[in-house]
Amino acid sequence: MKKIRVAIIGASGYTGVELIRLLTNHPYVQICQLIGNSNIDLEPRHLFNHLYNFNLPKLKKIEQIDFTEIDVVFGCLPHNVSQEIFKKILSDENNQHLKIIDLSADFRFENHHDYFQWYNHQHLALELQKKAVYGLSEINRDKIRKAQIIACPGCYPTSALLPLIPLLKNKLIENDNIIIDAKSGASGAGRNVKTSNLFCEVNNSFKAYNIGNHRHIGEIQQELSKANGNEVKVDFTPHLLPINRGIISTIYTKLNSNITIQDIKNCLLTSYEDEYFIKIVDHEISLSDVVGTNFCLLAVNSGNNKNSVIITSAIDNLCKGASGQAVQNMNIIFDCDEKLGLENTPIFP
Amino acid sequence: MKKIRVAIIGASGYTGVELIRLLTNHPYVQICQLIGNSNIDLEPRHLFNHLYNFNLPKLKKIEQIDFTEIDVVFGCLPHNVSQEIFKKILSDENNQHLKIIDLSADFRFENHHDYFQWYNHQHLALELQKKAVYGLSEINRDKIRKAQIIACPGCYPTSALLPLIPLLKNKLIENDNIIIDAKSGASGAGRNVKTSNLFCEVNNSFKAYNIGNHRHIGEIQQELSKANGNEVKVDFTPHLLPINRGIISTIYTKLNSNITIQDIKNCLLTSYEDEYFIKIVDHEISLSDVVGTNFCLLAVNSGNNKNSVIITSAIDNLCKGASGQAVQNMNIIFDCDEKLGLENTPIFP
Amino acid sequence: MKKIRVAIIGASGYTGVELIRLLTNHPYVQICQLIGNSNIDLEPRHLFNHLYNFNLPKLKKIEQIDFTEIDVVFGCLPHNVSQEIFKKILSDENNQHLKIIDLSADFRFENHHDYFQWYNHQHLALELQKKAVYGLSEINRDKIRKAQIIACPGCYPTSALLPLIPLLKNKLIENDNIIIDAKSGASGAGRNVKTSNLFCEVNNSFKAYNIGNHRHIGEIQQELSKANGNEVKVDFTPHLLPINRGIISTIYTKLNSNITIQDIKNCLLTSYEDEYFIKIVDHEISLSDVVGTNFCLLAVNSGNNKNSVIITSAIDNLCKGASGQAVQNMNIIFDCDEKLGLENTPIFP
Amino acid sequence: MKKIRVAIIGASGYTGVELIRLLTNHPYVQICQLIGNSNIDLEPRHLFNHLYNFNLPKLKKIEQIDFTEIDVVFGCLPHNVSQEIFKKILSDENNQHLKIIDLSADFRFENHHDYFQWYNHQHLALELQKKAVYGLSEINRDKIRKAQIIACPGCYPTSALLPLIPLLKNKLIENDNIIIDAKSGASGAGRNVKTSNLFCEVNNSFKAYNIGNHRHIGEIQQELSKANGNEVKVDFTPHLLPINRGIISTIYTKLNSNITIQDIKNCLLTSYEDEYFIKIVDHEISLSDVVGTNFCLLAVNSGNNKNSVIITSAIDNLCKGASGQAVQNMNIIFDCDEKLGLENTPIFP
Repeated sequence: MKKIRVAIIGASGYTGVELIRLLTNHPYVQICQLIGNSNIDLEPRHLFNHLYNFNLPKLKKIEQIDFTEIDVVFGCLPHNVSQEIFKKILSDENNQHLKIIDLSADFRFENHHDYFQWYNHQHLALELQKKAVYGLSEINRDKIRKAQIIACPGCYPTSALLPLIPLLKNKLIENDNIIIDAKSGASGAGRNVKTSNLFCEVNNSFKAYNIGNHRHIGEIQQELSKANGNEVKVDFTPHLLPINRGIISTIYTKLNSNITIQDIKNCLLTSYEDEYFIKIVDHEISLSDVVGTNFCLLAVNSGNNKNSVIITSAIDNLCKGASGQAVQNMNIIFDCDEKLGLENTPIFP
Repeated sequence: MKKIRVAIIGASGYTGVELIRLLTNHPYVQICQLIGNSNIDLEPRHLFNHLYNFNLPKLKKIEQIDFTEIDVVFGCLPHNVSQEIFKKILSDENNQHLKIIDLSADFRFENHHDYFQWYNHQHLALELQKKAVYGLSEINRDKIRKAQIIACPGCYPTSALLPLIPLLKNKLIENDNIIIDAKSGASGAGRNVKTSNLFCEVNNSFKAYNIGNHRHIGEIQQELSKANGNEVKVDFTPHLLPINRGIISTIYTKLNSNITIQDIKNCLLTSYEDEYFIKIVDHEISLSDVVGTNFCLLAVNSGNNKNSVIITSAIDNLCKGASGQAVQNMNIIFDCDEKLGLENTPIFP
Repeated sequence: MKKIRVAIIGASGYTGVELIRLLTNHPYVQICQLIGNSNIDLEPRHLFNHLYNFNLPKLKKIEQIDFTEIDVVFGCLPHNVSQEIFKKILSDENNQHLKIIDLSADFRFENHHDYFQWYNHQHLALELQKKAVYGLSEINRDKIRKAQIIACPGCYPTSALLPLIPLLKNKLIENDNIIIDAKSGASGAGRNVKTSNLFCEVNNSFKAYNIGNHRHIGEIQQELSKANGNEVKVDFTPHLLPINRGIISTIYTKLNSNITIQDIKNCLLTSYEDEYFIKIVDHEISLSDVVGTNFCLLAVNSGNNKNSVIITSAIDNLCKGASGQAVQNMNIIFDCDEKLGLENTPIFP
Repeated sequence: MKKIRVAIIGASGYTGVELIRLLTNHPYVQICQLIGNSNIDLEPRHLFNHLYNFNLPKLKKIEQIDFTEIDVVFGCLPHNVSQEIFKKILSDENNQHLKIIDLSADFRFENHHDYFQWYNHQHLALELQKKAVYGLSEINRDKIRKAQIIACPGCYPTSALLPLIPLLKNKLIENDNIIIDAKSGASGAGRNVKTSNLFCEVNNSFKAYNIGNHRHIGEIQQELSKANGNEVKVDFTPHLLPINRGIISTIYTKLNSNITIQDIKNCLLTSYEDEYFIKIVDHEISLSDVVGTNFCLLAVNSGNNKNSVIITSAIDNLCKGASGQAVQNMNIIFDCDEKLGLENTPIFP
């Protein structure tokens, strides 16, 4: 197979370097360009010592890149920035062949009012927003295959949507009683240097943040409402774990009348029976079971209250929650086996 | 003031050694007896190197103890064991003066059927069970003062009951819609040697456990129902954090009609305005703010859904959630300033 | 290529499960038997949830195994036990074809008096001890290829011997002035349930242990003395890091007269120029650069004193320090590319 | 006793906030001024949530302070900055009564060439440098009592000097063969926002840094040479532990002829027999034994080589290694019991 020629914009953050990890394991990928706005002409191994063993292209500025020699661009940029960069790239008619796999929030919303509501910023590339597909691989595979722009879901939304979409689609749970209590490792905050991300501030501690109003609520509600056909509103609280990677979302919801816990399990088992990366399990899920992998583990339990359902969902936020799903989407687009680049056994302990 | 003569049974576990930490800081306490069933005749400093600087009594077997020279006994024993030990001690008519402050679950239930339901064990000291008071200091202070047996609450229940009792008592929230998503450090599992407590199994990971059926549901529901006057049922999920100490409970509930978030805050502010150890704060609470202290920090937020309330509650599970509250109860019983032994600034970072 | 048929004895400890991780990534290996003395008939996925995705043989007792269908046996047993088990297996004349790759200390010593000195136990399989080769892959490759029994080096010795053997062989450093200050993650202690391995005892702390008399001194001195031709004695202090995996050894030694730091670097560069798994680097080495991999990173620095050399050496104790080197040795024996099963990019962050 | 009126310059870093922790526990101290160059007019509780329970003065700029109402100023400033600030303060003749307790490196060197060598900066307050005393409390107590400026030692030097000074003074060990392998928690790097201090970069990892040339070598050698009467040179390697607090220095040295390990122990026991904060112990020292306290624990072991001595020394880098020793020095100057503000039991686990 001809190699897929890849460029990564924003290659020196955590999602960028995770893409490098996964793509260097991919037999049909050539990493052709790494693009940043600092450390220009540096090899990645000098930015990330763990890459000592890899020969990778030096970082370049975006102005230096000839995108006609690239097949797919991964965007690892902050929201608001991403839309401007891709608008510019795609305004060049020589670049119309490009596939864009964006990891920012910029193309996740179908309605620009929603984008404005949650990101407090006028969308500047409305025509691109319309072309984009929400890149939840297992749910939107067919649309992803045909789209030019893939808006990869946020990490928290990935962990919540995978269990909830089939249940709401099949009307098994109440649509106005969904609570998502999510806990994420610190890499979710990116490689930004600020006091609250310092080792001594995060280590040995734990906290809830953005309680009741985190931006990811927007895309969760958009996708759940589409699945259910009615407006779905959720309560969502993110928490910061003193670990590097991983999200567990503990989801509380209520059975619709005449629905049993077994119906919930069966729905998930059936919905995902052909999916390699989604496993419905019976044991207590630990983050160490998924860290470093593209898997999503789901477990369904009854609560103590009548009709209560408690679902735990675990992913690696940088992998299935970001770069891994991005690679999975690339595999879908380029008609590869979806597992390529994404098979590795969890490291335990 | 004459010193309070203290004995600790089960002095070599984490709650026992935490009692030692707190009581050695207490100006009016003399630790007279440390009781165990192993390491007999050893000084605590040889079991716990961090006690190198303390002269403490050697461990003794319970048979060696003359309780007539003791004022108060702290029980740091497993449930089921505690009731038998204290039954025996109190069966001696010379020991009727003793105050018992028990940290196990054995005397927390008013109804022995509830005890059986959650602990799967016939209660063997029914007459003592009747004499016991649930030792949630701020709520039951007057009863604690007069009781012979104080059943100190579990760690999770302490974190959940302190915010919820005033709200249910004042009928500000729905009594059939309470979800407690709690996260605890590993010391909550005690110093038991089993694979799941090993460093390599807990470190770098996170998990939910006993989903929907953890034993602490029993005492939470007992106390909430009493406060509300109607039966209250809760959904509760405990999680294991890769840190030593601390619990954050994220509590989801619904406003009763015509009640506002501000009413919730006001209720807590008013209920606890004279309480030194309970603080209602406006910022995001971190566990590092309470670790090592007897404080409970509470924050009230509105959710994204109409009428949703999200309360975060943080304590140190070994201190306010166990040994600290036990010392606070001792202070109440012996009419000391409640803060004695319990004032220390959190260590940060 | 015909698949190598593998059995693992002691499959439920950390080195056993690391072997499973590596061998499931190996294209020419079939894991045929997993052998333990508990959990018989259980699939590994029920012991180790992170193996949910693998179909592996159920655990069996050693008595149930027909070794004529096996090519190579990995031993993940405690010292003293290993020699008895393998003596029994090899006493059967049908098993003479077997290759033994042992991860215990039982076959590391050429002289049984040394074994007795450090392990305080009479060696019970002297005839096997004589047949064994010390399995430091890069140093003893040719002997490993031909041997029936490979005694894989200890984790600390691997990190110390790889830099020191070439330097002592070439007489570049003083042979009576070698200090190895080593720091290891907690998995080095295995999956043994004892108080000192509990999460709360290791987390947030750090300590030196077995100061001046750790058993690994024996094999370090044996191998260094062989390399140098004169008796070499070392001072060695192991320390326990609050992380799961990884060893950094900081090695202090003195240049021989007329030798420069550059000579040291050149010697290592030359000695290991064809070695994939050993990298001599110029930057500060972090454990996160090697965790999960079979690499050994080495950095050479001058000290503040004249003639002082400070070498840092980093490996993953469970991989290059145990199971990874064991697989590398298997690749050597069976004439495979040494990298098979052992290529994976470090996960960062 | 009249309260000591304290000002802290640089109150929003880790050593500043540790001073606040200790001084709020001190019965004879009033924290009068907290001085910074940002967050002016903010109360510390808004910068450090763990101070929610304290009423402390708002941060002010140095220009706003009337130092005639202050008895002692603690300096928690970067080196190079400290000398300029204190030069300015002491140039005012109204401020001659002030005692200065400086935690920077600026006044630690007796010889400004040494300062230049290690800090690469011309000293700008030579006349103050001459007045300063090196504030290693147990060693220089008498000089500290009379000095106007106390240069508190660095954290690494404190851990190394306390065991080595008595041994070199008494000529028990070789003075040209001292290796200090030190491991510190991440708070030693301060609260500076840079990539290498981020949680995800430090967590789960470990590394040596500034190998062979760390600045603290300068002050270690100055003090050891003074103690010994001959020039002493040391090799020193600092390492970064993935914990918040604590230093263990593992020190390797050689016995002088006719000296025994017992002589070493006796020397330390005798030298420190009246010292509350220094304990010579027989067990393996863990950092958790000293974190949060002002203790220094020392253990002496023989090595494997003839005449080798291995000493482990443990302190809390922010306490005995910085702010705790500063408070101890304040107690010396103002003739208080040295333990005031500094007595608290380690928190374990």
